[in-house]
Amino acid sequence: MIFTRLKQMIVGKPMPSHRLSEEKISKWKALAVLSSDALSSVAYATEEILIPLAAVSAAALAWSVPVAIAIGILLIIVSASYRQTIEAYSNGGGAYVVAKENIGVLSGLVAGAALLIGYVLTVSVSVAAGVSAITSAFPEVYEFRVMIAVIVIGLITWMNLRGIRESATVFAFPTYIFIISFFVMMGVGAWKIWTGQAVQAHPILHDSYPPIAMFLVFRAFSSGCAALTGIEAISNGVPSFKAPAHTNAKITLTWMAALLVVLFFGITALSHVYGIVPRGGEMAVSQLARAVFGTNWFYYVIQVSTALILVLAANTSYNGFPWLAAVLAHDRFLPRQMAILGDRLVYSNSIIWLSIAAAILVILFQGETHSLIPLYAVGVFLGFTLSQAGMLKHHLKHKKPGWMRAFAINALGAVTTFIVMLVVGATKFSEGAWIVVLLIPFCVFIFYKINRHYLSIGAELSLMEESAPSKMNPVKHTVVIPISGVHRGVVEALRYGISISDDVRAVYVEIDPQATERVKQAWEEWAHEIPFVVLKSPYRSIIKPLLEYVDDLSNTVHSEIITVIVPEFVTAHWWHQILHNQTAFLIRAALLFKKGKVVTSVRYHIKGI
Amino acid sequence: MIFTRLKQMIVGKPMPSHRLSEEKISKWKALAVLSSDALSSVAYATEEILIPLAAVSAAALAWSVPVAIAIGILLIIVSASYRQTIEAYSNGGGAYVVAKENIGVLSGLVAGAALLIGYVLTVSVSVAAGVSAITSAFPEVYEFRVMIAVIVIGLITWMNLRGIRESATVFAFPTYIFIISFFVMMGVGAWKIWTGQAVQAHPILHDSYPPIAMFLVFRAFSSGCAALTGIEAISNGVPSFKAPAHTNAKITLTWMAALLVVLFFGITALSHVYGIVPRGGEMAVSQLARAVFGTNWFYYVIQVSTALILVLAANTSYNGFPWLAAVLAHDRFLPRQMAILGDRLVYSNSIIWLSIAAAILVILFQGETHSLIPLYAVGVFLGFTLSQAGMLKHHLKHKKPGWMRAFAINALGAVTTFIVMLVVGATKFSEGAWIVVLLIPFCVFIFYKINRHYLSIGAELSLMEESAPSKMNPVKHTVVIPISGVHRGVVEALRYGISISDDVRAVYVEIDPQATERVKQAWEEWAHEIPFVVLKSPYRSIIKPLLEYVDDLSNTVHSEIITVIVPEFVTAHWWHQILHNQTAFLIRAALLFKKGKVVTSVRYHIKGI
Repeated sequence: MIFTRLKQMIVGKPMPSHRLSEEKISKWKALAVLSSDALSSVAYATEEILIPLAAVSAAALAWSVPVAIAIGILLIIVSASYRQTIEAYSNGGGAYVVAKENIGVLSGLVAGAALLIGYVLTVSVSVAAGVSAITSAFPEVYEFRVMIAVIVIGLITWMNLRGIRESATVFAFPTYIFIISFFVMMGVGAWKIWTGQAVQAHPILHDSYPPIAMFLVFRAFSSGCAALTGIEAISNGVPSFKAPAHTNAKITLTWMAALLVVLFFGITALSHVYGIVPRGGEMAVSQLARAVFGTNWFYYVIQVSTALILVLAANTSYNGFPWLAAVLAHDRFLPRQMAILGDRLVYSNSIIWLSIAAAILVILFQGETHSLIPLYAVGVFLGFTLSQAGMLKHHLKHKKPGWMRAFAINALGAVTTFIVMLVVGATKFSEGAWIVVLLIPFCVFIFYKINRHYLSIGAELSLMEESAPSKMNPVKHTVVIPISGVHRGVVEALRYGISISDDVRAVYVEIDPQATERVKQAWEEWAHEIPFVVLKSPYRSIIKPLLEYVDDLSNTVHSEIITVIVPEFVTAHWWHQILHNQTAFLIRAALLFKKGKVVTSVRYHIKGI
Repeated sequence: MIFTRLKQMIVGKPMPSHRLSEEKISKWKALAVLSSDALSSVAYATEEILIPLAAVSAAALAWSVPVAIAIGILLIIVSASYRQTIEAYSNGGGAYVVAKENIGVLSGLVAGAALLIGYVLTVSVSVAAGVSAITSAFPEVYEFRVMIAVIVIGLITWMNLRGIRESATVFAFPTYIFIISFFVMMGVGAWKIWTGQAVQAHPILHDSYPPIAMFLVFRAFSSGCAALTGIEAISNGVPSFKAPAHTNAKITLTWMAALLVVLFFGITALSHVYGIVPRGGEMAVSQLARAVFGTNWFYYVIQVSTALILVLAANTSYNGFPWLAAVLAHDRFLPRQMAILGDRLVYSNSIIWLSIAAAILVILFQGETHSLIPLYAVGVFLGFTLSQAGMLKHHLKHKKPGWMRAFAINALGAVTTFIVMLVVGATKFSEGAWIVVLLIPFCVFIFYKINRHYLSIGAELSLMEESAPSKMNPVKHTVVIPISGVHRGVVEALRYGISISDDVRAVYVEIDPQATERVKQAWEEWAHEIPFVVLKSPYRSIIKPLLEYVDDLSNTVHSEIITVIVPEFVTAHWWHQILHNQTAFLIRAALLFKKGKVVTSVRYHIKGI
């Protein structure tokens, strides 16, 4: 088929199931692959802190450093908490699994909904920020940012439909280039201040801070919490690590947390020292890079590596989302087809839905990272909280050696992330968090509806019940063949009809009585043994009289099933189809959902020219 | 069905065939209804003359009056010529009919193509000009002109899908208001000049004319020829006249021609006298009306009546186009369904296509009348020429009393319109006439292709030939039932299968060997009498192994037809469908066009929740 060939051209040839092996990766590669989501947030989290503060006054920006310290502490708490999860769930303990196993199905589904929404937002936010990194360097393409973002999502989708392996070495480069170039920026920036080559606008910490509404400090804190997104990736990815997987994963998580804290705090502090003020059109980190290096080649290295790690971060959702959707579908909370591996060993359905949702968000929010952030953190922290809370139950149940220390750490994690969730929800509610607050219960509601549907269908279709059919007996059925004249196409349909039933009737809808006479004569000659019924049609409809006849027939002949055989043409060229078959299509559509009716097309292949 | 109810809400309930009666109309109503297309061109034809002249110099505008005189003479010649057609074709002699009957099929099709294109352009040009009349009065909506034009086309479409009667008295008003208000404008304009209340910018005729390239005079003439479009409507509409139809039609045609000449010449002359210079954003007639009346209430009467008659003119295409398309479809030059009267007694297909084409043109040409005009005249004059040329052959064949005089008139008409066609084609070629010059032969090519297709199909399907099947014998057929498990939906399909054939096989595609075992056990219990085939699927495709099995089967069992029965679910709510049936859909799509395969869905109605 044309479609098959087209699809193979785009996504490649099918792959056999045995290629779905679990490849084990080393720590340095795991750090690159599993941390890109978390580390990339350094590119926008600082700016998110500055924006609400700058709205008050330039002096208020001084608050950014204490806020960054608070976020750094939070980051350490959450990382420590996830180290416990790595210990307990060596198969990868996503929040859905941990919450469902330990707390209950509802909690699991809430976490699942929060995660799915989070994956979509990771794509939208990361791509939007990645495009920002480019438009910061090349402001002349700023007006095309939405289009560029949608194209980038399209490319990521295409790669994932072909089935890329995250473990490919090439994907490790952007992360390390990003880390190195950001460290270089911090080093050079500090050096220039120290040697007096750059004007120090502010000290890192102030003796006194300008009094502003605590609400605004909390809002800045909430915005900066975007830095924590993706921190759970390593604990979900334990099965990918080389043995000893636990230990390796824990070491990698510690490294990632350390890098994230240093990078995030460093960039925020440096931005404050250099007196960066957020403004539309150029990202804060781009401003900082220009302030440190000027617009030289290294500035472009920074921007390009920022863009690349953000695209990589978006890409991580293309593993997480389809995998979680498949787990939910397997548990009958999402449509079955989301659990079906496509012929390239990827969950094609989920990949496409993820891309569509992310692209819609990017378009709706006009590719502005800052507008998308308020939707992000509530779900992320809800997931954190449920996951940590699940761990508490887990510890109480298993009471492994040293469980009390782990319990304490997870308890701190759970309480902290719960409080942060409330703070984020409250300070960001009107800016967009309300969307997610409404969306999560809605998703959970849909999950339950789908589950109930599958369960009820299962019961209904079961052959184990008392009402099940007792015998495999044939059905009594009548065949109706609507004809438009007497020709070879009709003859094929009639031959098929008499071969599947003894009760066959040809039906002709009369529009023009003269034509009826001609058809009747031809009928006598060719098929007089089959009853020929003429239906009047004062309104010139072909369909209506036919439907009425079929309904009447159901009542009179007491057949269990009436099969309507529609003679159709298959033309040699597809564009010839528009010259035929309209009526056949309408008959099929009209009878499609009627009970006790089977519609069969017998197709006659015509060559035509 | 929902679709049926929605359709009835929009276009109304079906009407029985007997309501398709020929209503006869009086001369005064016929003049209004059949002349709106021709008369409405007065609204834009003058401006079309002025635009190419104004591009040279203000002085060159003096040429507009001689050009208008030339067009006036042409108009009289063409009208006289069409009086002969009325005499000869009392059933309405459209150019297609006249050319096909007298010259040949090719000429008829060329005329038919020119006419169809002309109908589309009538809609586009008239609606664009009508919207111009409004935006001239209310410049603040000028930027929305394309949208307004598309909405107007939508409204006309809707009215025509419901089936309006052109003969409705209400449609006579706009034409008469237009005629009267334009006469008032000419009278008041002349009076004001005569009494010195207005400054006379120029005399009507000059003693000497500024020397300009003759090409430009011809181009102005070609543009002004837009005034002749629609002049043939009365001769096509003879059957609508009260007896004596001939005489009444001829009288009406004479009246229309006289009105058109006077209005067109009067407006052009008055525009020159008042020194109107065409400019973007306001129509020339609007400028003239403001010059004569100022922007008072009567100015708005002029604009609104101009807009209304133009909409009415657009509407005339909605009778002409579908009727001609139906004639062409009846002669097998267009798809059959264009000859089928819908349940509101209108040719719904053609109406929709006409609207789509016209709307596309309006959008492409940004609702600018002036940009559309160059496409218009070539086709119109080609139609005139072929129609008159056909009349010449007609006279030679029938030689009715007084045929020589009629022959002379038609000869003059044919030669004149042929020359004008060449002039228009040459002077407007690069401005857009080339589109139509290419489009007409392309349409004719398509007509012939469609015709050849239908004829070849007719021969192929004929039972009269030697190769026709000799006997109505049943076919040998095998049934294949793909199953996904053993449940009630499958049981229904199996019961149906064994009732239509003795050779039934159930086929199961194995993805997971453990699942296969469970299905096999259930099979033994429920349907062991039917062969159960397991197909391996290393690529996890359900479709491919099934297709291969069916193809193999065709070769081994020598069945003429293999029926694939697909068990499907019909869910209680349509949105539940997305949770089911994807595989059934794919199987159907894959086998759709294969020879010797019949795909039948046996649907099990599930309630579900």
